[in-house]
Formats: sequence, C-alpha cells, structure tokens
Amino acid sequence: MQANRIHNFNPGPAALPLSVLEEVQENLLDFQGSGMSITEISHRSRQFDDVVNDAVARTKRLLGLDDNFEVLFIQGGASLQFCMIPMNFLPEGKSADYVDTGTWSTKAIKEAEIQGKSIRVVASSEDKNYSYIPQNISFSEDATFVHLTSNNTIKGTQWAEFPDTRGVPIICDMSSDIMSRPVDVNRFGMMYAGAQKNVGPAGACLVIIRKDLLDWIPDTVPTMLKYSTFSAKNSMYNTPPCFAVYTVQLVLKWLEDTVGGLEKMAAINQEKAQLLYSFMDDSDFYRATAAADSRSLMNVTFRLPSEDLEKQFVEQALANGLGGLKGHRSVGGCRASIYNAVPPQAVEALVDFMKLFARKNG
Amino acid sequence: MQANRIHNFNPGPAALPLSVLEEVQENLLDFQGSGMSITEISHRSRQFDDVVNDAVARTKRLLGLDDNFEVLFIQGGASLQFCMIPMNFLPEGKSADYVDTGTWSTKAIKEAEIQGKSIRVVASSEDKNYSYIPQNISFSEDATFVHLTSNNTIKGTQWAEFPDTRGVPIICDMSSDIMSRPVDVNRFGMMYAGAQKNVGPAGACLVIIRKDLLDWIPDTVPTMLKYSTFSAKNSMYNTPPCFAVYTVQLVLKWLEDTVGGLEKMAAINQEKAQLLYSFMDDSDFYRATAAADSRSLMNVTFRLPSEDLEKQFVEQALANGLGGLKGHRSVGGCRASIYNAVPPQAVEALVDFMKLFARKNG
Repeated sequence: MQANRIHNFNPGPAALPLSVLEEVQENLLDFQGSGMSITEISHRSRQFDDVVNDAVARTKRLLGLDDNFEVLFIQGGASLQFCMIPMNFLPEGKSADYVDTGTWSTKAIKEAEIQGKSIRVVASSEDKNYSYIPQNISFSEDATFVHLTSNNTIKGTQWAEFPDTRGVPIICDMSSDIMSRPVDVNRFGMMYAGAQKNVGPAGACLVIIRKDLLDWIPDTVPTMLKYSTFSAKNSMYNTPPCFAVYTVQLVLKWLEDTVGGLEKMAAINQEKAQLLYSFMDDSDFYRATAAADSRSLMNVTFRLPSEDLEKQFVEQALANGLGGLKGHRSVGGCRASIYNAVPPQAVEALVDFMKLFARKNG
Repeated sequence: MQANRIHNFNPGPAALPLSVLEEVQENLLDFQGSGMSITEISHRSRQFDDVVNDAVARTKRLLGLDDNFEVLFIQGGASLQFCMIPMNFLPEGKSADYVDTGTWSTKAIKEAEIQGKSIRVVASSEDKNYSYIPQNISFSEDATFVHLTSNNTIKGTQWAEFPDTRGVPIICDMSSDIMSRPVDVNRFGMMYAGAQKNVGPAGACLVIIRKDLLDWIPDTVPTMLKYSTFSAKNSMYNTPPCFAVYTVQLVLKWLEDTVGGLEKMAAINQEKAQLLYSFMDDSDFYRATAAADSRSLMNVTFRLPSEDLEKQFVEQALANGLGGLKGHRSVGGCRASIYNAVPPQAVEALVDFMKLFARKNG
C-alpha cells in the first residue's frame, strides 16, 4: 500500500515514524494472531499485558530509570496533570515553587490556584513575552516540589540544563521534549508528557513518578485522580486507552531498536535544529524568535518580514509537501516542530524551500 | 488484505464493525488526502473539526437530541465521570439519589462519598448479588439528580424501562448499552458512556449533557474536570483523543447509514439476545444468572454445571473461533457480550457451539 505522505512539522499531534504507522496498519484487523484488532482485545488479556509491560520496560531502559520510578499511562493529557499534581502533592501546609515560561506553565500555575493551593511563582519570563528561560532562580528551601516546563511548544524555548533546586524534586512537564535527549532522572520527582508530540498519538499521557511521592497522596483525592491508583494496577484500574498505549510502545521500540537510544536521538535532533537555526542566523529574511541561549531543539519559532509573507509561506510550503508550519494562534508567525519522528531529510527539504521562498520574496 | 478474524464476545474493549476497521486501516497513512495519518493531523485542522462535528451531529440524530443537549468527548472513561459528576453537580447543600445495581454503580457511589458529598442510596439489589433491577423506588423529592447504571456489564442486568423520577433529571452511565436502543432523552440530565463497548475503541467517553446543568458547576472545580470546559471548546480545550473520536465517528456512521438507526439496531439486538436466552431456558446444562425481567440484552451471563466445565467451555469455544466468553473475574462463570457490532451470525455460531458442548459434556 503506497500513500502520498508529506513532511509533517505539526506541533502535536505530530509526525510518527512511518515504520510504526505501517506496523499498526498491517496488524489492525488481527493483532498477534488473536483474530481481533488491538482496539477489540481485552485490556485484561495476556497480549495487552505484554504491550503495557514492554512500553514500561522500554521507557525505563531508554531513560535509565531504576526501580525507584513507576511508569504510568493516564488519560486527559498533560492538562489533566496540571490539576492532579497539586491535588496529589500539596496537602494543607505544604507549598511548591513554579517557574512560568509561557502558556503551559501558566496553565499549570492556574490549576494550583483554582484549588487554593499554596504556591510561589519563583521566576517568570513574561517580561519579554516568554522568549527566554530564566536563570539564577532562588528556589524556596521548604518547597515540596519545583514545577518546570522543559520545552515550550508555543514560545519555542527549552531548558538546555535544568536548574539546581538544591535537592527539591522537580516535577516537569516534558510533553514536547520527552525522549528527545538523555536527562539526569535523579533530579526529578515526576516527569510527564502528553504522548502526541514525541512518543505517540493523542490519548495517553506518559507519567514517570518517583515511588516515594506516592506516599504523599491524601485519601480525599478521588480514585481516578490519584497517581497511586494507576501505579497499584499497572495503569489498568479501568480500561486504558489501548490503541494509544500500543502505538507508544511501537514508537519506543523504534527509538530503542532502530534509532539506538536517547544519545543517538539527541545527536540527530541537535543536527536538525542546528541546520535550521544556523540557516536563519545567516538570513536577513527569517528571524528566530527565541533568545539564542534558550532555543528549543523541538519547536523552532520564527518570523518573516510581514504577516502577509508568513501566510504565503505557510500556504506555499504546504503546496510543496511541507505541512504544519503555522505558528500557534496565540503568537502568530511560523513554527517548525522537528520532533524525534521528523527525519533530517524533512528539515533539509524545509531549508531548501525557505531559501527559495526568500529568494523570490526577499 | 485478508485477516483471520474470530467471533468476538469481549465485554469491552469489544467488537467493532469490520467495515469500520477496514476504513481505518485503508486510510491510516493518509487521512483524506492530507498526506498524514489521523494520528498525525492537528486537532485544530479543518479535517479534524469535520470529524468531531460529524460525530456530534450523528449522535444527535441517532438519539433524537434537540439543541438543549451538548455532545462531548472526554478522556478517562466512565470511571472519571464517577468523580466529576458530584464535583460538578453537588455543591454544598445539594443532595442526589443513587441506585446501586452492582460494581459500576457502587463505584459511582464511592466517588461521591470520597468527596464528602451528600447522597442517598435509594435502592440496591445487593441482597441477591445484584441479579435484578430494583422496582418501585421512592426517590427523594429534593434530589438534584438520580444516578443510574443502565446496563450492568458484570452482573448481566439492564433497566428495561427507566424509573419515574418525578421530573428529577437522571444522570445515567450507559457505557454498555448506549446506542443499542432508542431512549426517551428528555428524562435525562446527562448520559455518559466509555466508548469501548458499543461505540468505539477505548480512550474516549461520550458525554451527552443538558445545557442547563452546565450552569450548576462551581468555579472551584479544576478546568479539566468541568463539563463546561469541554462544551465551551467543542471538546477541544486541550488535545482530544483523536484516533478514538475518529473511530467513534465511523461507528456512528455505520449505525446510522448501514444499520439504519436505533430502532433497527434495537430489533437486531432483541433478536440476538432472544436466541441466546431462549436456548438457555430450554437447556438443563446452561443457566442464565440474571432475573428474567432484568436480563441484559448486551451482556448475557450464564453458568454451566461446574467451574471445571466453564473453564473447558471457554477454552474450547476459543479454539472454535468464539472469543471473550469468560465471566468477569469478580463473579466467575461465562458471559457473552453481544453489543451492536456483534452480528447475528456470531450469536448463531455460539448457540451451535453451546449445543455441541452440552451434548458432549451433559
């Protein structure tokens, strides 16, 4: 089966490895000889147990997690975690530090505030329209956790290094850069990521949690909003989003077996981003919007000389097989999301098109 | 592409119409000429808008809903709604009636209690192991809502008629029988259903809500736990479970255009259930466990003369291409789930096998 595919620079849902989609397609009517689709088999079956266990094991190997961590799959996206985190980890009398690096951080802060939780926003880059990552932050000594957003999909910034929180565990929204590079996992109490950017389709949120944090959860939290419910039942207290978890498993298999792990993935991602940023730095036509030391390797945000040219750029790019290049509706401009599954060839094709477009319109 | 398919009697995730799976498969690498998979396109795209809007429109037509109702897609399954319902609709000073007809009702009750909400369990069939549907219930006059479970997947019972609540809106978990028959929608304040039984794959919960209930929701509810968040954004406040919603859309299209609507579906479902129950009523070997007036048309629970025979039955059935017949682990025995997508021929094949098995082992 041949399909007419484009280069996909969508911010999420985003590109998946073609080999993963082909495997999903091939097995869609009959999963592992069961005579049923992956969408039709029981989540209590041996076959589905194998899917979840393999996804968990690969996550642990890829990130280098020891047995102090649990790997969970939860529905509702990162947005649901924004309210679950304070609900689970900020009982009466406890406080947490939040860093505000844009839209998603701001939303996480708001969900703590709606619940009347005690939090402190210890740093923000709002003063420059979130175009940089704050440095030299004074964290509270008695914070229960520090909340960060590792990569800011909309503003195109990313923490190159995570800040020193003096032993306070970081809870980090890694939706748009999880598995894009190795991280020092021991700095984190929890890492979470909506799957639809770097690890799969929409509908599953990958949550990696240090086991001791599970002891903090109050009994008054509803069952489906407690992380301990998911950890006690290997993410299957109720029916999990089976198709999404299965596809995540295949993406992790691709990352581990085909790409060769996070060091290799990070090198490829560096190379892709470098190609795009260095081209723009040499150009008078395109301007990258993030501060140079805060640039995201995942979401490259940029402007053209006018909004009219930006509109033409996005349209003509699509006509040339380069999709998803429009900036987020809240900030305008252009954006190339170059997650793990976007191959170097796609970025090369984009740069070629950008050169051509600048020559015609510059 | 030919696949070796079995007759699938799984309780959920469950059988999907083969034509739906084939359409998903065929378009998996290129959704509507976009050059991207349905799992890779933006939920903010025109293409995905069309998917959601068509799923909503078909739900309204199939159930005969007027503009007083909103149709939403939420993650977390029916289990998440168990806690969202009291959170949204039971502010201080309000109380609700719950009817306990088994496992899922009991869980819904528990989630209200965890939050310290005021509820009254007005009827229960626990005295006879939930084998019947309570009748002649005295509902509270001042209840904000009455909570029911329309079909009890595990115990194999179903409300044939919904009780007279004297104008109090019913909030009903219809996970295992939604779209299996017409209902008088004006009795309901909310109907909700995990998709993975009658309308799609796991990962989306269909929520149908009367608009005036949205005004009851307190501001203190976290954003992702408020029904009003989903209604304000056509279920796309954050990234929805795109693949699941898309598959639901295709199932609804099948139901409306191929089957011909809920009256026709109900007649087929009646016929399938009748075939199975009447065969068992004439048999000394098989015994249906639900009270005759409370039998589910969706989940037919039954016992054989011994647990050993039940084990052999399930194994030999599978070897003969009849899968998913084991009873829920909490009750044992056998169960044939015969949802919309299970064709009459599958039930006929099951009855044929049951006759043969009884003859050999009776």
